[in-house]
Amino acid sequence: MDMNAVNSLPFEDFVRIFGNVVEKCPMIAAAVWSQRPFASFLALETAISDFIDALPESGKEGILRCHPDLAGRDLQMGTLTQESREEQSRAGLDALESAERTRMAQLNEEYKARFGFPFVICARMNDKANILRQLSERCQSERAAERARAVEEVKKICHLRLQGLVRTDAPNKL
Amino acid sequence: MDMNAVNSLPFEDFVRIFGNVVEKCPMIAAAVWSQRPFASFLALETAISDFIDALPESGKEGILRCHPDLAGRDLQMGTLTQESREEQSRAGLDALESAERTRMAQLNEEYKARFGFPFVICARMNDKANILRQLSERCQSERAAERARAVEEVKKICHLRLQGLVRTDAPNKL
Repeated sequence: MDMNAVNSLPFEDFVRIFGNVVEKCPMIAAAVWSQRPFASFLALETAISDFIDALPESGKEGILRCHPDLAGRDLQMGTLTQESREEQSRAGLDALESAERTRMAQLNEEYKARFGFPFVICARMNDKANILRQLSERCQSERAAERARAVEEVKKICHLRLQGLVRTDAPNKL
Repeated sequence: MDMNAVNSLPFEDFVRIFGNVVEKCPMIAAAVWSQRPFASFLALETAISDFIDALPESGKEGILRCHPDLAGRDLQMGTLTQESREEQSRAGLDALESAERTRMAQLNEEYKARFGFPFVICARMNDKANILRQLSERCQSERAAERARAVEEVKKICHLRLQGLVRTDAPNKL
């Protein structure tokens, strides 16, 4: 789909297609539809990013809390969104060895207990070893810094999901 | 569930239980979890209401755009959320006569073309005749007034959905 096609979408179709570029937050895509037409892929991405940045800190944490654990219950139960399932699978998180799965679960719980939101990382930009290492390191962060870091990961995930839906007409900004 | 139980919920359970008190906007419940403990049912409801009010106008429109048409495609296709299905059914919208369904569809399209978001009304507080009359009338509103009116309806829907989940310990404010 090119940007002309994107800009001609009625809101129902826009929300159906872009509703999960931020995990389980269709309200964000639904909000930025108000700003169409978008001059470019980057303009669409920036509108989403700006909307997130303008939210209060509780809203940013709300976005994070809509994300599933990595290699967690939703993966095991088959209740991940299609996008998350593909991303976690690509990173090898659906094929962890028993010790890795246990370690991941322990660190996920530690992280959530410390911050009150789940560990979010762009799985497609990392392999399982890297994810485990970063999860372990980020358990030591300060809360405000970690929230900001996690929101940046949300934006990376969003960027790749958008790229899967729209033909980019601007340089990759990541 | 009483407020003590609500206040002791981990965020995953809180989001699972309250994630659809604002239709398809789990981020809102996920955001207000940051403000627990809630002193009362009213405090929880007010936190949600205040979060919505603090959103930019585009964000409020985003919330509206996550709502299904009344007696629309999602009802016919069986893709409504459980809450919406029950509410539309209770108002008789799943048992419209052919002429009523046609009229409703025409007015829904007229409304969306005019405002860029769908007609939202608290179906449980209205019957089908009343809904059709208000849809027809509100098609004539000004955009800003109509957006504000629709957001008030979102809050009424939220109030009743919350009442279905939490034992209220404060007078009904509606």
